[in-house]
Parts: sequence; structure tokens; C-alpha cells
Amino acid sequence: MSASFGTWRDRFERLRANKIFELTVIAIIVLSALLIGAKTYEEEVSPFQEWLLLLDVGVTVFFLVEILIRMAAEKRLLDFFKKGWNVFDFLIVTASLIPMEDSEMVLLARLLRIFRVLRLVSMIPELRMLIAALFKSIPRMGYVALLMFIIFYIYAAIGSFLFSDVDERLWGNISLAMLTLFQVATFESWATAVLYPTMEHYPYAWIFFLTFIFLNAFIFLNMMIGIVLDVMQKESIQVQLESGEGEAAELHGLRDDVRQLRDQLSRMEAMLERRER
Amino acid sequence: MSASFGTWRDRFERLRANKIFELTVIAIIVLSALLIGAKTYEEEVSPFQEWLLLLDVGVTVFFLVEILIRMAAEKRLLDFFKKGWNVFDFLIVTASLIPMEDSEMVLLARLLRIFRVLRLVSMIPELRMLIAALFKSIPRMGYVALLMFIIFYIYAAIGSFLFSDVDERLWGNISLAMLTLFQVATFESWATAVLYPTMEHYPYAWIFFLTFIFLNAFIFLNMMIGIVLDVMQKESIQVQLESGEGEAAELHGLRDDVRQLRDQLSRMEAMLERRER
Amino acid sequence: MSASFGTWRDRFERLRANKIFELTVIAIIVLSALLIGAKTYEEEVSPFQEWLLLLDVGVTVFFLVEILIRMAAEKRLLDFFKKGWNVFDFLIVTASLIPMEDSEMVLLARLLRIFRVLRLVSMIPELRMLIAALFKSIPRMGYVALLMFIIFYIYAAIGSFLFSDVDERLWGNISLAMLTLFQVATFESWATAVLYPTMEHYPYAWIFFLTFIFLNAFIFLNMMIGIVLDVMQKESIQVQLESGEGEAAELHGLRDDVRQLRDQLSRMEAMLERRER
Amino acid sequence: MSASFGTWRDRFERLRANKIFELTVIAIIVLSALLIGAKTYEEEVSPFQEWLLLLDVGVTVFFLVEILIRMAAEKRLLDFFKKGWNVFDFLIVTASLIPMEDSEMVLLARLLRIFRVLRLVSMIPELRMLIAALFKSIPRMGYVALLMFIIFYIYAAIGSFLFSDVDERLWGNISLAMLTLFQVATFESWATAVLYPTMEHYPYAWIFFLTFIFLNAFIFLNMMIGIVLDVMQKESIQVQLESGEGEAAELHGLRDDVRQLRDQLSRMEAMLERRER
Repeated sequence: MSASFGTWRDRFERLRANKIFELTVIAIIVLSALLIGAKTYEEEVSPFQEWLLLLDVGVTVFFLVEILIRMAAEKRLLDFFKKGWNVFDFLIVTASLIPMEDSEMVLLARLLRIFRVLRLVSMIPELRMLIAALFKSIPRMGYVALLMFIIFYIYAAIGSFLFSDVDERLWGNISLAMLTLFQVATFESWATAVLYPTMEHYPYAWIFFLTFIFLNAFIFLNMMIGIVLDVMQKESIQVQLESGEGEAAELHGLRDDVRQLRDQLSRMEAMLERRER
Repeated sequence: MSASFGTWRDRFERLRANKIFELTVIAIIVLSALLIGAKTYEEEVSPFQEWLLLLDVGVTVFFLVEILIRMAAEKRLLDFFKKGWNVFDFLIVTASLIPMEDSEMVLLARLLRIFRVLRLVSMIPELRMLIAALFKSIPRMGYVALLMFIIFYIYAAIGSFLFSDVDERLWGNISLAMLTLFQVATFESWATAVLYPTMEHYPYAWIFFLTFIFLNAFIFLNMMIGIVLDVMQKESIQVQLESGEGEAAELHGLRDDVRQLRDQLSRMEAMLERRER
Repeated sequence: MSASFGTWRDRFERLRANKIFELTVIAIIVLSALLIGAKTYEEEVSPFQEWLLLLDVGVTVFFLVEILIRMAAEKRLLDFFKKGWNVFDFLIVTASLIPMEDSEMVLLARLLRIFRVLRLVSMIPELRMLIAALFKSIPRMGYVALLMFIIFYIYAAIGSFLFSDVDERLWGNISLAMLTLFQVATFESWATAVLYPTMEHYPYAWIFFLTFIFLNAFIFLNMMIGIVLDVMQKESIQVQLESGEGEAAELHGLRDDVRQLRDQLSRMEAMLERRER
Repeated sequence: MSASFGTWRDRFERLRANKIFELTVIAIIVLSALLIGAKTYEEEVSPFQEWLLLLDVGVTVFFLVEILIRMAAEKRLLDFFKKGWNVFDFLIVTASLIPMEDSEMVLLARLLRIFRVLRLVSMIPELRMLIAALFKSIPRMGYVALLMFIIFYIYAAIGSFLFSDVDERLWGNISLAMLTLFQVATFESWATAVLYPTMEHYPYAWIFFLTFIFLNAFIFLNMMIGIVLDVMQKESIQVQLESGEGEAAELHGLRDDVRQLRDQLSRMEAMLERRER
């Protein structure tokens, strides 16, 4: 039985590596996404309802089989869960299997089914590389985000102490104040809806907003420049090390050659001197 | 007749390469563009109407003759259509030739005539280089655009499920939701017109909008940095290869020289040793 | 007594370098920040009031003791104030010690306490590095800011001369005009709330606004590019000097070797010539 | 007399190069700028009026004398006008000399006086370098601006043909349409004030706006990346040429040394062979 399973595993592995198979899966993911989208046009649902339901079940079953094939294709089940992308796929598939019949749960079931579109990301190698690159930049961005959060927190605290009596909805508590400051940071109606009404009560409120905007812009700009330079420097050093290594080896070999010449000459000089005596 | 056509072709070729001829064509394109613009000022049209019509016909005929000259200047007609820019010019010229008299078609005819301004792009070498550079960056941008589209689609689906009863015009179906999300991504009235009305019904709606904005900004930032680094790395490697090649050749030649020295020395040492015996 | 103080100092120094001690301080800073934030939710204050007060005093005392330990740990008190970060911490702690009981001063006392969150920046090394990098970029940014200020000033003066009768609140005096121009520079309602109302009186006002926006964008873009290139160039020169130094030394050594060979050969040639005679 | 003028010229030249003199001029420029700003606060003018007038005349006379000194300090008057910055200063000074008494001309006189603030730019070397760098980047930006203008023109023509009956103020003629498109390009109320009202009549208007925004963003992004890479490449090639030159010279010298060795060895070999015979 182990041998027959091995044959099965090989077949599945070949199937998984098959380009047409992959394209079919991608096509079904896109179709499933379009179905979810089509459901939002309520008036058009009735004529297609039956077809939609059938396709929906088909897509769910397909994804289940597809992931089981991939699990079987691994030598050990644990190897399957070692890759982040497999865990990602597994979660999406199992989530869409949970049976939900309550009218309240229908919404949640629909939402879970939307995330199947994310499978596209794990199917297309270029998108997978993009996401991997994004994850790499998270630690670099993390500390800047922390610094930004501290600045937002301080300004939000000051803002909610000073301006809470001007507009309760904008500055009522620290959470609302942070949301308002985020709105200011995106420049959305920051002057007409936030600054000017506040300046009617506190004429010097512009100091609060302008320092906040400048601080934000300054940190953001420096962060962007910093990241560009950081990554670039690493890569340029690597490139130079690689190109330098070839040259350094060449130079080193040359020096060895010249030293051999010296030894040879020394021997010859010794011979000449001996004869001179 | 073949010889006389050859003479004609040469004349056309010289005419095409003529700087003054090119400048005249550019001037006529600009004039034709200004005519189209002038037509939008309805009150001023009447006094110039006749002149405008004449100039318009003149421009159309000129472009037709100009492209026929260029076609004749090629050795084979197929060679003409091998260049993307020629196809581009041909389409623009033929489109403006289609006769349209119906009042309904007048609008379409006008629109087609506007695209003649694009001929400027194919006439000015610097603009042609710019466009060529833009086209080169499309594949790099393509996958980021796909990733963005997936994120927009998922958020639009969630948004239209959750918020469709809050504002039918913003979240009624998945297309409207995507348009609303694009508005949010450009920060246009995203807080005052989209977030705050939604938060009155769903107080935690800010999670939806803030994750969307951060995800977008994060991917956009990484994409820009990625593209800058990508292009830069390629160019810096090329520069280093080029500069390195010269140096490597120099080093290689030097090593050959030193090895010749060793051979010479070895011969001399052999002579000395022979005499010593 | 000096010896026993030395023992104390060593203990404090070890305590200060202790990772757990640092994490505790960071936890207390975060807690203290959350307390300040919690105070902005007025309705929830009553049940926690007593605990909050106690924790507040605890945090204040803790910071005082912590900074005294760090002062004592230094060999001389002046050394403590030589580091910018120590001065920064000292100011924050002493500011929160000032006793304020008047109802008017309560607001100021609260504001001062918010700035204790900034202690997080001086505790976390990565944030300290970020801030140090920000400070380094200030001189580079300074002259661009001055240039921007001059442009804002000139446009504000022109704006307040020309448009003060259109909208007194936007262009009433040069300060208001500069604020309005800042709003225009952030693109916030610049067309609907500022440009179009002005164009009703001055149809050519768009020249004023468009030149301002283009000038700003142009300088901002050039500044960003300039800074990226400036920093990058410095770093690339440094990298090349470092990698070049190794190679230059290697080349120099090689040349010395070759010159020694020549000297040796000259001696041998002399010997051979002497014998020939 | 020529000698005494030479003495005078030397004195002026030394005065011009004097640091204190320059700082005084800068202080007066700043003061003059503040005066212009103060005039916009109408209520405060009366008490200071006389002082202001006196200072204003003083500043005007000072600038006239300062530029005459600089003109006299040059060996030939033409040399003075060869430098762009001198022409710039000359224009600003002469403009502020034009006598204007009519109430209509007062506004123009004031505006001309504002431009004296620009003298700051020509006084501070760092700002002069910044401006010089800005001027250098104009040709590079020029063709991108032309491409952008063509796109704006085409979209404006289409927009004014299609949407002129939707909103006459936004799309009435090609100039208004271009202004509206610029507003869209800055994302100012583009959805709420421009797109949505248009979509009520033309449901597919979003295609027009989205292609326009994407095209703009795409060209802008590519332009920025292009400029960064362009400047960087030039500088990195220069740096490598410079650092490469030193190395190339060293390598070349080394090769010459080795060739001298070969000649020497050939002579010695010849000697040895001669003896062998």
C-alpha cells in the first residue's frame, strides 16, 4: 500500500507542478471572486441563483481537494505546515468549510469566502515575491511606526485636553483625537473642518497643527530616505564585495607571481656571486 | 518607372529628415490642437468658422500626405508597420479621415481629431524616449497593480456587505465600493464624507479604513523603493562591469607580462646552471 | 564613605545596565501614558480615581529615583549633563515634579506629564538612533525651509494686497495669508474653498495659485532628490574609499616588490658586465 | 583721477567682501520684508506710519547705493551684467525706484517692493547654490512637463466636449476644463465635487477620471524615479572615473615597470648567450 501511495503522491506532485493545472486553479479563484462580487448586485442574483450556488460548492470542494493533494504530495504532513504559504492556504480553505446556516452567520461566511481571493497571491510566484519583500521591510518600518505613534499619542493627549470643549466629536477623548489627527495627517479637510473652527476659540491653535504636520512630514521624509539609503547601501556593498573579490584574488595572485620571480632572481644572483669569487 | 520612384523616395526621405520640414509639421500639429481648443469657446466660433474649417481640412490633408510620403520612403510597406510609432501615426491619421456628417457622430469625430495632438509625441525625439521608458516600466508596475487590485476587491466586497445599508450610493455594490475605496485611497473627503457617517452606525468602522489606508500606503511605498532599487542595481552592476572590464583586462595583461618574465628568467637560470656544472 | 559610595555607584551602574530594570521602566512609562489617555474619558475616571492617583505618584517618584541613580552612577555630575539624552530626561522629570494645585494650572501639569511618554524614545536604542538621524538632517533641510519661507512670504504679501477684500478671513493680513497658502500647499480645499471664490472677483487669480503650487512642488521635489543624492554620494564615496584603500595598498605593495626586482636585476647586470670586460 | 577711482573701487570691493557689511544688508532686507508684512495689518499702521515711511526710503536708498558700489567695484560695467545674480539684483532695485503716486499704482509699487525679499536669496550663498541646482534641473523636467501638458490638453478637450452641459463652470471651455483637471490631479474634492455630479449624467465618467489619474500618477512616478536615477548615474560614473583614474594610473605605471624589467632581462640574457658561444 505504501508503494501505491507513493505512485499516487508522484502523480499528485506532477499534477501540482503542471502549468495547465495551476492556470485552471487561478481561473477558478478569479471566477469565485467574481461570484462574490456579483452577489453584491442584489437585483441580478435571482436568475443566476442556482448556477451560483452550484459553482460555489464546486469551488469549495475543488479547493479542499487541491489542498489535500498538496498535503499528500509532501513526504511528511509536518513539512506541509513548515511553509508559511501552505499554512496561509490551509487557513483560507478550512475557514470556507465551516457550515453556517444562521442568518446572522451568513455575513461572516461570505466574508470568509472573500479571503479565498487571497489564494491568487499564493498561486502567482511574482505576487509571492512581492509579499515576501513587503514582510522583509516590516522590522525597518516598525520603529518609525512606533515613533509616529508616540507623536500621535502626545498630540492627541494635548489636543483632547485643550480642544475637547471646542468640538466633542473631534477631540472628546484620546481615541477620537488620534483619529482626528490621522485625518489631519492625510490633509483631509484639516484646515476647513478642523483648524479654522478651533482657531475661533483658540487663535494660536495653528501652532499645534503646523508643528504636528511638520513633525510628521519630517519623520516620514527621513524614513523614506533612510530606507532607500539603507537597502541601497547593503546592496552596493554586496556588489562591490563581489566585484572586489575577483579583483583582489587577481591582485593577490599577481603578487605571488612577483615573489616567485624574486626568489628565482635571488638564486641566480647567488650563483653569479659564487662564480665571481 | 522603378528608377523614377527611387528618385522620388530619396527626395521624400530627404524631406522627412529635413529639420525645417519637421518643425513645420510640429507647428501645424500645435495649430490643429489650438483649433480644437478654440471650438470649446462657443461664442467665439462664428467669425473664425470659415477659416477654421479650411485649416482643419488643410491639416487633415497634410497629415495624410505626410504619412504617405513616409510610407513611400520605406523600401517595403511592411517595414513601415514594424515600428510601433508608425502604426501609432497611421491609426491617428486614418481615424481623422473617417467622414462623419451625422449630428451624433460629430462628437466622436471631434474626439478622434483631438488625438492628433498625440502626434507631437511621435515627432519630438525626447518625448518618444520618455514614452519608451514609461512602457519599459509597465511589467514592473503590473504585478503591484494586480496586488493592489486584489486588496481593493477584498475590501470592496467586505465594504459592500457591511456598509451597503449605511449609504447605498457609496457601498451599494462592489463597483461603487471600489470607487469609494479609490476615493479613500486618494484621501479625498475620506474622513468627513465616508468614515464619520459610517462610524455613526458602525463605531469600529475606523479599523476597516485605517487598515486599508496603511496597507495601501505600505505597498505603494515598498513598490516605489523597490523600483528605484531595482533599476539602480541593474545600472550600477552594468557600470561596475564596464569599469571593471577595463581594469580586469589591464590586470590580466600585467599577469601575462610577469609570466613571460618568469619564463625568461627560467631560461637564464638554466644557462647559468649549465655553465656551473 | 567614598568607598561605600563607590560600591553604591557600582550597584546603581549594574542596575541601570540591567535588561529587566530597563523593561520595567519602559512598562511604567507605557502605563503612565495609558493613565494620561484614560483621563480623557471623563465618565470612566470615578471608579479608578484613587488607584490612578496612587500610580501617578508612584510613576513620578520612580522617575525621580531612576534619574538620581543615573546621576550618582556618573563619576562627575557634569558628565551627566554632557549627554543630550540625559538633559532631555532631566527636563522631563523635573517638569513633572513642579507642584500645581490651582485649577488653572492643572491643565499645564497634565500637559507636562504627557511629555513623560517621550522618555520611551530615550529608553529604546533604535528610537534614539532614529532621532539622532533626524537631527543630522536638520541643517540640510534648513536652507530649503528658508527658501520655502521666502516664497510663502512673498506670495502671502501679494495675496493679502490683492485678495484681502475678497475674503477677509483668508487674506486679511500676512499671517492669515501664509496660513491660507499653507492650506493651498497641502491641497486642502484649495480649489473649491480658495481658488474659485477668488476667481469670481479676479478671473486671473489661477496664475497666482498655479505658479505657487508649481514652485512649491518643484522646490520640494528637488529638495527630496537633492537630499537622497547628497547622502548617497557621501556614503558611496566612503564605501569606495574603504574598498579602494585595500586595493590601493595592495597595488602599492606590488609596485614596491617590482622595484626591488629591478634593483636586484641591476646588480646582477652589473656583475655580468664586469665579467664580460 | 583714475588712480583715486581705483582706490575707491578697492575700498568698495573690501566693503562688499566684508562679513559685517553683508550681515547688515541681510538684516535690512529682513526688516524691509517685515515692514511690508506689517502694512497688511491695517489697524496697526497709524502709530508707526512715519517711522515706516522713513525706514522704507532708507532701505530703498541703501539698496541703490549698495548696487552702485558693486557696479563700481567691477573693472568694467559689462562684467557686472554678465552674472545672472547681478542682473537679478539690478532689476529688483530699479523696480523699487520707479516713482508711483497714483492711488492705482500704489498696489503695483508695493508688489515690486515685496520682491526685494528675493535679495535674501542672492545674499546667502547656500540659497544661491539651491537656486542654481533648481535651474539645472529645469531642462530635465521640461519634457515631462510638456508630456503632462499634452495629456491635460487632450483630456480637457474631451472633458469640455462631453461634460460642458453637466457643469458649465467646470467644463465650459478648454481653459476651465484644464483647471478642473488640475484640481482632480491634486485630488482636491475630485470625487465629491467633480466625479459624482458628472456620474449622475454619464455613469461611465469614472473611466475618464480614473485613466486620467492613473496616467498622471504613472508619469509623475516614472519622472521622479527617472530623475533620481539619471542624476545618480552621472555622479556614480564620475566618482568611479575619478577613483578609477588613480587606480588606472597606478596599474599603468606598474605595467611600465614590468616592461622595463623585461628589457633589462633581455639584455642580460643576450650577454649570457654571447658568453655561451
